[in-house]
Amino acid sequence: MISIKSDEISQLEKQYRTSLINSLIGYRSLNLLSTTSNDGITNLCLISSTFHLGANPPLVGLVMRPEREHNDTLRNIKATGQYTLNNVLPQWYLQAHQTSASYPSGVSEFNTCGFKKQYVSGFKAPFVGQSTIRIGLELRELLDMEINGTTIVIGEIVQILADDTMIAEDGTVDHAKAGTVTVAGLDAYFLPQPIGRLAYAKPGIEPHLLESNTQALL
Amino acid sequence: MISIKSDEISQLEKQYRTSLINSLIGYRSLNLLSTTSNDGITNLCLISSTFHLGANPPLVGLVMRPEREHNDTLRNIKATGQYTLNNVLPQWYLQAHQTSASYPSGVSEFNTCGFKKQYVSGFKAPFVGQSTIRIGLELRELLDMEINGTTIVIGEIVQILADDTMIAEDGTVDHAKAGTVTVAGLDAYFLPQPIGRLAYAKPGIEPHLLESNTQALL
Repeated sequence: MISIKSDEISQLEKQYRTSLINSLIGYRSLNLLSTTSNDGITNLCLISSTFHLGANPPLVGLVMRPEREHNDTLRNIKATGQYTLNNVLPQWYLQAHQTSASYPSGVSEFNTCGFKKQYVSGFKAPFVGQSTIRIGLELRELLDMEINGTTIVIGEIVQILADDTMIAEDGTVDHAKAGTVTVAGLDAYFLPQPIGRLAYAKPGIEPHLLESNTQALL
Repeated sequence: MISIKSDEISQLEKQYRTSLINSLIGYRSLNLLSTTSNDGITNLCLISSTFHLGANPPLVGLVMRPEREHNDTLRNIKATGQYTLNNVLPQWYLQAHQTSASYPSGVSEFNTCGFKKQYVSGFKAPFVGQSTIRIGLELRELLDMEINGTTIVIGEIVQILADDTMIAEDGTVDHAKAGTVTVAGLDAYFLPQPIGRLAYAKPGIEPHLLESNTQALL
């Protein structure tokens, strides 16, 4: 058993600590975050800090780091009030990873990394043509975090674009069918396999698989 | 292609909308969140809104819903200033799901759902004995979100407990080896399979697998 305490964490070699801390909480939501400037220069970057804030209204949060590389994205979100999140597929996750390189301002990762722009009426930021689950968001709130200089961006989902058959009967997105990739830490990519859908949990009733899913492997 | 716009989202049947919105951003970090009251009554619940806020200091955020069922957890975090996050394994993910049932205040999900408490010196909240990756956190900040009544809890990682061999040479937690489960939406559980670890992305250099990982399936 490895035990690492606070004073030891702060003394870890910087890159080791970054890799460790980034990977502790497990698999993370992985999306391509697309924005555009008012001049129409698009920007695309990988984001794995997205979190569900609430379903009604439909709100999603994400963290923007203070470093230079993300300034285009945050500036574009502030300028246009819109952005899109697009899932990553195994066929092109290397190109998606490549969007995290520090390209100079003014270079669009759509072009450099080979992504198709998909425009929707009324939405300035493009969606990613190759994705199978795409959501469009409008900025609702920015939280500047004094504790470490990051910014938490809260947005409302105002547009959902999904390939046919990707949404199950009860509304749940079928990410196995959608081919969605996940990430742990900075660079470890994974393709999840379904193990089961469970019935709503109630006190006194044994946890069990949904009837529609009794064939799932355990 | 399915296209759903803002006004249609708000008109969706409530449970359908909840399932849809919860599952849009993809796979999420899945952990058992453990707390204790000042009286020593422990509480355990599933949490899938955890996000990485920063590595230095090592900060993690998570969202507490306004509903009654989570009040024990938030009250305990405020009272003791401490909590733990513990990964979920496929052997007992049904029991982990069961902790989301609305047990009365005072009933510990550790006992009801069959989890072992693991206490560490100086840490009031227990860790989950069956987990392979366990982190202890101290409360740093609470953000009350007016927009929907949720609370974003920011904590600093002050203790890491991991089974031997779960941390790779570069610091990245090996969640495949750790057996970590992930979730999409409210009840769809998955076990991820590794597809590759990628080298740090740089402009002008083709994205590629890390040398140590060239055998990964694409």
